[in-house]
Amino acid sequence: MSKSIFIRNASQLVTLQGSSNAPLVKEAMSELGIIENGSIWLEDGVIQAVGLDEELALMYKDRLGDAEIIDASGKLVTPGLVDPHTHLVFGGSREQEFNMRLQGATYMEIMNTGGGIHSTTRQTKAATHEELFQESYERLNQFLLHGVTTVEAKSGYGMDWDTEVKQLEVARQLNEKHVVDVVRTFMGAHAVPKEYKENPDEFVRVLIEEMIPKVAEMGLAEFNDVFCEKGVFTPEQSRQILEAGKRYGLTPKIHADEIEPYEGAELAAEVGAISADHLLKASEKGMKAMAEKGVVGVLLPGTAYFLMAESANGRKMIDLGVPVALSTDCNPGSSPTVSLPFIMNLGCLKMRMTPAEVITAATINAAHAINRGREIGSLEVGKKADVTIFKVENYMKLQYSYGVNHTHTVVKNGQVVVRGGHLVEELSFSKN
Amino acid sequence: MSKSIFIRNASQLVTLQGSSNAPLVKEAMSELGIIENGSIWLEDGVIQAVGLDEELALMYKDRLGDAEIIDASGKLVTPGLVDPHTHLVFGGSREQEFNMRLQGATYMEIMNTGGGIHSTTRQTKAATHEELFQESYERLNQFLLHGVTTVEAKSGYGMDWDTEVKQLEVARQLNEKHVVDVVRTFMGAHAVPKEYKENPDEFVRVLIEEMIPKVAEMGLAEFNDVFCEKGVFTPEQSRQILEAGKRYGLTPKIHADEIEPYEGAELAAEVGAISADHLLKASEKGMKAMAEKGVVGVLLPGTAYFLMAESANGRKMIDLGVPVALSTDCNPGSSPTVSLPFIMNLGCLKMRMTPAEVITAATINAAHAINRGREIGSLEVGKKADVTIFKVENYMKLQYSYGVNHTHTVVKNGQVVVRGGHLVEELSFSKN
Ligand SMILES: [Zn+2]
Ligand SMILES: [Zn+2]
Repeated sequence: MSKSIFIRNASQLVTLQGSSNAPLVKEAMSELGIIENGSIWLEDGVIQAVGLDEELALMYKDRLGDAEIIDASGKLVTPGLVDPHTHLVFGGSREQEFNMRLQGATYMEIMNTGGGIHSTTRQTKAATHEELFQESYERLNQFLLHGVTTVEAKSGYGMDWDTEVKQLEVARQLNEKHVVDVVRTFMGAHAVPKEYKENPDEFVRVLIEEMIPKVAEMGLAEFNDVFCEKGVFTPEQSRQILEAGKRYGLTPKIHADEIEPYEGAELAAEVGAISADHLLKASEKGMKAMAEKGVVGVLLPGTAYFLMAESANGRKMIDLGVPVALSTDCNPGSSPTVSLPFIMNLGCLKMRMTPAEVITAATINAAHAINRGREIGSLEVGKKADVTIFKVENYMKLQYSYGVNHTHTVVKNGQVVVRGGHLVEELSFSKN
Repeated sequence: MSKSIFIRNASQLVTLQGSSNAPLVKEAMSELGIIENGSIWLEDGVIQAVGLDEELALMYKDRLGDAEIIDASGKLVTPGLVDPHTHLVFGGSREQEFNMRLQGATYMEIMNTGGGIHSTTRQTKAATHEELFQESYERLNQFLLHGVTTVEAKSGYGMDWDTEVKQLEVARQLNEKHVVDVVRTFMGAHAVPKEYKENPDEFVRVLIEEMIPKVAEMGLAEFNDVFCEKGVFTPEQSRQILEAGKRYGLTPKIHADEIEPYEGAELAAEVGAISADHLLKASEKGMKAMAEKGVVGVLLPGTAYFLMAESANGRKMIDLGVPVALSTDCNPGSSPTVSLPFIMNLGCLKMRMTPAEVITAATINAAHAINRGREIGSLEVGKKADVTIFKVENYMKLQYSYGVNHTHTVVKNGQVVVRGGHLVEELSFSKN
């Protein structure tokens, strides 16, 4: 049995209580359920009590000596952050291409030097399981240092079955070996492989009849994602791929309306996707359909920032009742970052979300976007002991004092893994 | 005598050699003078040698045992970053106002709740010297953690003589007590005090005939800055204020063309200002005049980001030959950050500067903007031993891997002050 942890006397303890059953929408995204001078008792990896410091001190008065006490006075305590959309497992690094882009190179010039997604596909294919594991493990450490305790991870840099399996197996092993929880999504439908360019429907057939059944059978993923975009997969192909996944128990997700309006948001509502992601060009009709069906809108303003594009209209989506979540989109091409706190700041300054809304979006709504709303994303009795402590006095300052990583302490599964902004001894990170 | 420091084998050592006499312009801003597998020997607070690791290892072979060795392999080594425009010394924090703004409050609504610059003026006035010192000291620690070793600091939250003096005296004491160098600018002309609203020329007279002579006499500052903007100080008033400063040995700086085009860039060139800052609305004619006179354009894209405005046109200024520098504009109203590395990233993604140019802009060009080009801003023999080590393999990745503070080690005046991303024991920070 691990030691109990008593986090005491937070300047603000953001509980987000009452949000486990469904993602929060509209005004509820701003409520936060803050307890001032709040404390929380963690034991056996689970939240045992949440409340005023004086209440908990009384409740546990006979056990204070046994617990590790963390003084959170003057600090902000939130649920561990949740990142619901990443391409965590990949090979290579594409800063040369980024540099070329800033020097004014065109897309074609970059492609001609071997850049673009094919660069990542090539390097992911070439990397061994062990290499991908090591690089992604290090990335998870960096996520932890930015307060993130759960990460979704997609395949999709394979374009062939073996590499897809390799990515998902690495993600599974990361989930076992790294303290951060890794939730897996199959995204065979990330691009149409070159050999199918003349006949993309044949690739759709392979996905539906061969890959998806095997992914399900092997238990490689719980979600099935598709890049629905002009020149990639049409809405009709996307629908077929997502419906096929459903027949095998894979919950649909969709990369929707990123570059051109393509009725991806509408499709997400129609097939009952758990989330629709990107949504830069989503129509108002699509947003309303998502709101009606409770499809989480996973917004990725870092990608827009990095590609020098306009962000999605987060403000409008919230006002229309879409449950909004935020994510890094961590990937080597369009969003090479692990900083969900910075993405939250972009949520405020590029999408006019409020400092309260971005916390909801990066915790409980993000948890619902990966079907974990009942286990994580809020600080309530019985939930996982995943807690982040920021070195700011209140949630407004977390955004106001911009460009800085305020993560101070992270508790994951009831274990302190970041202390004073540093990872604790690495050996203890394994879950087993 | 302090111990020698031998920083060895950097993946890339950015020297910026040959830049001490004048700020870099155009293509020269991209040169960087990189040495791969580069090393640097620091002693008595001064850079003693810079070159290939094998050369320096040979040169100092008899002294390797006496030096502290810092292994920089796989890392990027640059001159300590220089922030040439801050309002470092202030009282209070304005996150409530920021929150209101994101909730849709108008400027007037914020003013009516006691927000805006008057809130900072009030709190700066109310704070004691000691309080301002402590808060600003902590801010300097945060600057160090982001790789910054020299900071300019302006007065201007006083609006009365005593508070102006208090700000500048605090800045002087910070320069003495904190390891970071603090360079002082008098900015009595930050706003027209309420009591002079009916007769701003009378306030200009007070500045010129009373305050500026006293600032010079008391040795409170070396620069004289003015907020030249519609509704604040006209170009003609600004000229008078800056010319008066020159007569007393204070070098002109100017907040120019921030909100509306007002020929501030032109004025900067005319009066021979060392820098013109902000420049969001500067005219092409003004930029060309600055280029001709070598006036450094200090750009503050964080302020634009935080106020949700368009950034200055950094790309165009560089192309026209303006020596461009970058700065946080650290202040509680329009830019509450200490992260010059994030400002550099905004330089790339909001002003289309390249990863090479933003390094030049935050080191040697920033140094020239505060008349320190001969002492700091490049890694050359005889210059101050101010060095920042980033945990990235190359300068492109410093920008590519965005939203993350990559600062790993900072050496200031030949003393290690940040190690592994953490401040070393605080006691050793004093200069004396
Ligand atoms: Zn994606
Ligand atoms: Zn300023």
